[in-house]
Amino acid sequence: MTSPAQPLRHRVEEWVEQIHDQLVGALERLDGSGTFERDRWQRPGGGGGVTAILSDGALFEQAGVNRSAVWGEFGDAALARLGGTDREFYATGVSLVLHPRSPMVPTIHANFRYFERGSDAWFGGGSDLTPYYPYESDARHFHSTWKRACDAHDTLYYPRFKKWCDEYFFLPHRGEMRGVGGIFFDELRGDLEATFAFVRDCGAAFMPSYEPIARRRRDERHGEQERAFQLYRRGRYVEFNLLYDRGTSFGLATNGRTESILMSLPPLARWQYGWAPAPDSREEAALRFFQPRDWAR
Amino acid sequence: MTSPAQPLRHRVEEWVEQIHDQLVGALERLDGSGTFERDRWQRPGGGGGVTAILSDGALFEQAGVNRSAVWGEFGDAALARLGGTDREFYATGVSLVLHPRSPMVPTIHANFRYFERGSDAWFGGGSDLTPYYPYESDARHFHSTWKRACDAHDTLYYPRFKKWCDEYFFLPHRGEMRGVGGIFFDELRGDLEATFAFVRDCGAAFMPSYEPIARRRRDERHGEQERAFQLYRRGRYVEFNLLYDRGTSFGLATNGRTESILMSLPPLARWQYGWAPAPDSREEAALRFFQPRDWAR
Repeated sequence: MTSPAQPLRHRVEEWVEQIHDQLVGALERLDGSGTFERDRWQRPGGGGGVTAILSDGALFEQAGVNRSAVWGEFGDAALARLGGTDREFYATGVSLVLHPRSPMVPTIHANFRYFERGSDAWFGGGSDLTPYYPYESDARHFHSTWKRACDAHDTLYYPRFKKWCDEYFFLPHRGEMRGVGGIFFDELRGDLEATFAFVRDCGAAFMPSYEPIARRRRDERHGEQERAFQLYRRGRYVEFNLLYDRGTSFGLATNGRTESILMSLPPLARWQYGWAPAPDSREEAALRFFQPRDWAR
Repeated sequence: MTSPAQPLRHRVEEWVEQIHDQLVGALERLDGSGTFERDRWQRPGGGGGVTAILSDGALFEQAGVNRSAVWGEFGDAALARLGGTDREFYATGVSLVLHPRSPMVPTIHANFRYFERGSDAWFGGGSDLTPYYPYESDARHFHSTWKRACDAHDTLYYPRFKKWCDEYFFLPHRGEMRGVGGIFFDELRGDLEATFAFVRDCGAAFMPSYEPIARRRRDERHGEQERAFQLYRRGRYVEFNLLYDRGTSFGLATNGRTESILMSLPPLARWQYGWAPAPDSREEAALRFFQPRDWAR
């Protein structure tokens, strides 16, 4: 995998398969009860992937980890969205969304991908945390982990990718952040070998960024009020993914595999007209908590 | 209200207020237990509206009936979506979405609206039925009622608006209809007085189109399996409204009142990776049922 003699796309693809397996294994151990079902699929235009889903686990109400390597020619819909004239593309990546059962454990998303289009090539990715209840130490741990992973490669990465994440995971129609952010980057070119090394380190940072949070929150007490707030906030997750997420809208508009794309949606979500938190409640504190802040300080 | 001496927009606005009140009253009586809360709001740029919501009723898990009359100048976001150069607009209308508690009672949507932009003016609207379980007689009753309302004005209306509805309420990423359709029309100009008379008759046809269905299905037996299927299918309703509904995306992109726009979303919805109905089940029959058909024959 590490021999630079092989074309980059093959080495990235191999890494994607490895990190997918590692994440599935690590998340299954973290859950402690559920098991992932692996669903292997082919893409008619070229390539395919594996969607691994764990449902009704001890920790995870639903956990999905996708990997894919697809290639072919962009159709007119994709070209209209992307601009440019190059139709030939290759893309490989891994993406995951974890919906814990307990409202005290944050939902999390991560995604790392490599793209080639004509003679152009780049990496994209990131990870963002969506807590329901506000624990400062969780947000600090999460951001510090990603800052360390970034700083090892370029000290400009974290401030830039953290800001990008805050801007990206924002719901303008609500005037709300999706959660406490993390890092987000796209079209990262430069020295592709060095960028690939950075992306591999990001993959390795995922479990350390999340596992300690999940372990210390999974047994926190909660009741119906916390569950109702979690389901309500999951509604925002649905709104973001269907209204704004670029990967989702691009995937659906270009005949991507719907079930794999929409595994990001929560197993259960609710909406309630005009809901507002009670004054001085933990829910009110939570909504104040989801603001861009310097968490890694 | 019917004096043609008054400008059309004022008479439409008055009708919108009347039909809103009538629908709220009729739906409250049909529910038999819940009451609507009326939430009056102002639009900073001009105008305002009333959102009436009934929650946790006997028949309706959530019922929302909006009315609004708004005016002002389109911002750049609206102009980019609409094209053209005229910024001045006036819009008034009523819209409703009813999410019944029982999976045996269909969800329903209706919307009637009047637009002015510069010197141009038109009506739009329609109503579509989204059953969970397949009852042919319900689809036939619903379509026949709308066909009668259309035929009284123009026998070309129903076939045209029925087809338009089938095309509009379609989820391309699922290859699925939202339900059994109904009628949909937009930019209906022509003789605006005659069109207004048609729209008024549509408003009057709403309760007759739905009430008999709700009354004969509300006491049908159902259990956990039917409830699970209802929540799963409500996920499709969320997908349609957030991914494709023009009113929703236009409203959210132009700083419309979010809570009033998204009252269309169900109180509870679920997603399940790779779900498929059991062979020969009622759920399988339901999915086969949601196809464009000549229901009013």
